[in-house]
Amino acid sequence: MSNDDEDDLIFKALSHRVRRRLLDVLKVESMTTGALCALFPDLDRCTIMQHLSVLEEAGLIVVERRGRERWNHLDALPIHAIHERWIGPYAAYAASMLSRLNKALPEEVS
Amino acid sequence: MSNDDEDDLIFKALSHRVRRRLLDVLKVESMTTGALCALFPDLDRCTIMQHLSVLEEAGLIVVERRGRERWNHLDALPIHAIHERWIGPYAAYAASMLSRLNKALPEEVS
Repeated sequence: MSNDDEDDLIFKALSHRVRRRLLDVLKVESMTTGALCALFPDLDRCTIMQHLSVLEEAGLIVVERRGRERWNHLDALPIHAIHERWIGPYAAYAASMLSRLNKALPEEVS
Repeated sequence: MSNDDEDDLIFKALSHRVRRRLLDVLKVESMTTGALCALFPDLDRCTIMQHLSVLEEAGLIVVERRGRERWNHLDALPIHAIHERWIGPYAAYAASMLSRLNKALPEEVS
């Protein structure tokens, strides 16, 4: 699979707000699929599992099977690679400062 | 526009490989639309302008008009926000180390 194909999978995975929300939850702590389903009561288990499968295929989560449980862990390396590609280590400090300045400015000015 | 709507625009914009390529070029230096078109001879000017418009709408580029020229500048703040959301300042160093380790490992082991 080329880098372009891998990137297609990553950005396709991140383009859905439910999948972004799943990553938000997994950033805080790794969770079983059952526990994730309980956090999203509006979605059925099958939908959640489909979203997790898209995230796994993109390398954004790592799934570990422990007995009958499926533990889902965030893998932040693809996110890090996005940052490296368009910001890189040297511009990271400037980007961080700009981001804080942007948040500190009143809405009408920023 | 909600944050979810803004994020939808950002990830939709990043989901196309030509648009990612345009950002790669603009990371190196800001360019006029004409100069960008010359770099992508397989695509017509209208297609390039449509891609630039999607990037501008997502806030990934800033377009500056100077006389008859349109100068396109990369705006890396949305990329920085992606990094902040799932990695954050405290995990950035660990992610950077892991990324280097991953690249240093032979393909069959990593």
